[in-house]
Amino acid sequence: MKFSQIVPKVNHLAHSLTNNPEIDPDLIAVAAIDEAITGTISYIEGKKYAHWVEKTNASALIIPPDPALQDIASHRQIPWLTSGEPRLTFAQVIDLFYQPYRPQPQIHPTAVIAPGVKLGKNIAIGPHVVIERDVKLGDDVCIHPNVVIYPEVNIGDRSILHANCTIHERTQIGKDCVIHSGAVIGAEGFGFVPIATGWYKMQQSGVTVLEDGVEVGCNSTIDRPAVGETRIGKQTKIDNLVHIGHGCHLGANCALAGQVGLAGGVTLGNRVILAGQVGVANQAKIGDGAIASAQAGIHNDIKAGEIVSGSPAIPHKIYLKIAAITQRLPDMYQFFREQRP
Amino acid sequence: MKFSQIVPKVNHLAHSLTNNPEIDPDLIAVAAIDEAITGTISYIEGKKYAHWVEKTNASALIIPPDPALQDIASHRQIPWLTSGEPRLTFAQVIDLFYQPYRPQPQIHPTAVIAPGVKLGKNIAIGPHVVIERDVKLGDDVCIHPNVVIYPEVNIGDRSILHANCTIHERTQIGKDCVIHSGAVIGAEGFGFVPIATGWYKMQQSGVTVLEDGVEVGCNSTIDRPAVGETRIGKQTKIDNLVHIGHGCHLGANCALAGQVGLAGGVTLGNRVILAGQVGVANQAKIGDGAIASAQAGIHNDIKAGEIVSGSPAIPHKIYLKIAAITQRLPDMYQFFREQRP
Amino acid sequence: MKFSQIVPKVNHLAHSLTNNPEIDPDLIAVAAIDEAITGTISYIEGKKYAHWVEKTNASALIIPPDPALQDIASHRQIPWLTSGEPRLTFAQVIDLFYQPYRPQPQIHPTAVIAPGVKLGKNIAIGPHVVIERDVKLGDDVCIHPNVVIYPEVNIGDRSILHANCTIHERTQIGKDCVIHSGAVIGAEGFGFVPIATGWYKMQQSGVTVLEDGVEVGCNSTIDRPAVGETRIGKQTKIDNLVHIGHGCHLGANCALAGQVGLAGGVTLGNRVILAGQVGVANQAKIGDGAIASAQAGIHNDIKAGEIVSGSPAIPHKIYLKIAAITQRLPDMYQFFREQRP
Repeated sequence: MKFSQIVPKVNHLAHSLTNNPEIDPDLIAVAAIDEAITGTISYIEGKKYAHWVEKTNASALIIPPDPALQDIASHRQIPWLTSGEPRLTFAQVIDLFYQPYRPQPQIHPTAVIAPGVKLGKNIAIGPHVVIERDVKLGDDVCIHPNVVIYPEVNIGDRSILHANCTIHERTQIGKDCVIHSGAVIGAEGFGFVPIATGWYKMQQSGVTVLEDGVEVGCNSTIDRPAVGETRIGKQTKIDNLVHIGHGCHLGANCALAGQVGLAGGVTLGNRVILAGQVGVANQAKIGDGAIASAQAGIHNDIKAGEIVSGSPAIPHKIYLKIAAITQRLPDMYQFFREQRP
Repeated sequence: MKFSQIVPKVNHLAHSLTNNPEIDPDLIAVAAIDEAITGTISYIEGKKYAHWVEKTNASALIIPPDPALQDIASHRQIPWLTSGEPRLTFAQVIDLFYQPYRPQPQIHPTAVIAPGVKLGKNIAIGPHVVIERDVKLGDDVCIHPNVVIYPEVNIGDRSILHANCTIHERTQIGKDCVIHSGAVIGAEGFGFVPIATGWYKMQQSGVTVLEDGVEVGCNSTIDRPAVGETRIGKQTKIDNLVHIGHGCHLGANCALAGQVGLAGGVTLGNRVILAGQVGVANQAKIGDGAIASAQAGIHNDIKAGEIVSGSPAIPHKIYLKIAAITQRLPDMYQFFREQRP
Repeated sequence: MKFSQIVPKVNHLAHSLTNNPEIDPDLIAVAAIDEAITGTISYIEGKKYAHWVEKTNASALIIPPDPALQDIASHRQIPWLTSGEPRLTFAQVIDLFYQPYRPQPQIHPTAVIAPGVKLGKNIAIGPHVVIERDVKLGDDVCIHPNVVIYPEVNIGDRSILHANCTIHERTQIGKDCVIHSGAVIGAEGFGFVPIATGWYKMQQSGVTVLEDGVEVGCNSTIDRPAVGETRIGKQTKIDNLVHIGHGCHLGANCALAGQVGLAGGVTLGNRVILAGQVGVANQAKIGDGAIASAQAGIHNDIKAGEIVSGSPAIPHKIYLKIAAITQRLPDMYQFFREQRP
């Protein structure tokens, strides 16, 4: 694809075919800036990577709106696009070069589909899929091989279930959701009441609901509660190996990174971001737009917009201050010993 | 179901059909106190939720033995049960309203079962299950779709294996166990000996044993050891995404919350409780009834009954004290700087 | 197997049939030192277990080159092997007694294999396996039941894929790899760009590469990147429930323990060891031979050979010093209060 063909198809602020207008390279692939070879288009994001404009082998670039970088690229005869959001523009360019694998819409003869299952139009159901009674699939749904769907599940239009995931009874999955391989949605929450002889199992009669556009990573688990709902708000994105306990309510547009764990009954507002391995205790409430750093341990409520770090989690600014002072503890301790041996 | 029909079927200390004995509502569902609507029965546990007696829309309540709460409920014409363990009574009430999904006892024709497998009475084996040679299943065992069972596995009466879980060779599963979707039981422990060219794989010739009543959460993994056993004591309950290394020995009635990780050779006594994301190092021994708070990192032995927190884990009382003092570190540091700049 | 038959088959420095050369026991199994019974061979590693030579019931022992231990064993009429690496020698002895389960080389009729898939010699493909178009399997590959392989995957000679794992499109797996049950290799990295209406999905057009001899634990996940590669160096061993984000590059001979999490773009050198539940932040670089203690949180680059602990991770020696001082904080705080109330 010619660079000039890409220009009108993506968001950008300005572009240049270089000071030699005849240079319009034929681009064959997208590449990271430090791995780019001739024939690829790449992008620069942030100061950390800016110096790569001077040495990359990419044949075209997406760069931030920085005249100095534009000049270097032009001088090196590299045509460029300027974008206020280079990573977003790069994502749009990837879409021009790459189509993710999708199986053909057909129902494989080895799939076992219970009588009475309702199927929309244009559905792909792979080999060895099992769909139990009273399941309803919308149009253009894609079920990869070896997925198991328990009874009474609804799955909205265009949702994709990757191989070997499991959807438990009564789960409601919206439109345009993606469930990655090995994820388990709507299984029984961890509900046991201590009794003299051990534990009394509290049956989990509730339901798990994923609103439209939710994505759940590989081998993540989202449990259903004893009563009521576990609910994931629209467009919320969940990475791999995340655990969401029974009765959690997540708002819209949240992002949960790998290995995050939410205990039972946690509430997240909208646009909450939890970095890797964060843990949140039972019943904690986290406000809109709050952010937790990696490995934070949240035991109490967090206000909207707050940034927290550490275990137990505290405001990030205080965390940084205390972390810095902690480095000085040996000096402080020596002073203490001198003053009061 | 009428409230008066529930009363004789569950444990309780007292009950009231309200001061208007004709009020005996027809209850159609169970509900959480903050989501309860007309026609539901709910429960109150702890002071945090007590104020809901004044405003809940539930048509019947389980409340702790508190005359004030009883009075409020009666005054609002809400019939009530009093229980010393409201959550347990609520679990018993759920059992009256909800039957978990169980497939019919039959062996699906797409299941692949090796010759010589021994099957008890009344067994359900779902589509695409694979059972290899010399496996023995007890009576009333339920194997959901796409489960794989390697050779020489025994599974006791009434145990349930959910979809897409895998049971590896020689694993012994007791009676009344539940293995949730995606769990992997009895796979090879992580045993590698460093050698000049990399790693020498130590074959894992041991076995994993789950005693009666063990429950293993979704996508959890319990490895087998090089020699000897990995053993999970009876009635021990394990949540999702938990890792139990080779050669661990867990006592009875323990509870391990989500994402707990035990390295190799860890020993837990009976009734040990590990909260979410706790990690325990190689060979550590944790005594009966000990409790570890979320994200604790246990490197050494813990005595029976001890409560520990933090990483490295220390007694909880000391942890709380140090955590509080940590908040004062900026003041302490300023003092230190003044005294010795 | 007679002890005298074992002697020539394993690495060792010296051996003794005891001072009674007629004692050459018939050994029937391997055992841990604290569980050994008559007829078993066991081993001693480190001082912690040395006292077991005096009381073990094992009929033969592998012991470190310590004349005192040799004397005790000889005196107890226990034949012994001396090895500088008793654990390695024990692993070699296990190989004499134990052959891991391998299915017969055959292609089960229920496997669904797309036209054009290329199969090497002597391949085992279990029931309900699904192999999509343009996959290539080397010689002696073993695919256990219910594995799913997406299109365009290559798998090298002698690699083993355990039940219920999933290999995504374009993944390259070398020779002699082992992928354990439930692992997911080459799925889409977690790439979303924030936009006004939520998130723009960045398609993951890259590829995941596992070099020869890599082992991936149960339910671990290794994502592919938007562009370029995620690469795991040869002989690197990965335990259960580990998450490796898109675009990570791991060197050779690393070992990652259970529940380790690497965010996107992390680089590990060769022989890096990460203990359980370690987390590494985006783009961090860790040098050859570095070691991180359990639950360490690595945010910045780590030099070759460095040992780090804590979250945020700091050099282990400093960590130990600060951890010790932390225990004295109550005293220091009291002093501070007295001096400046």
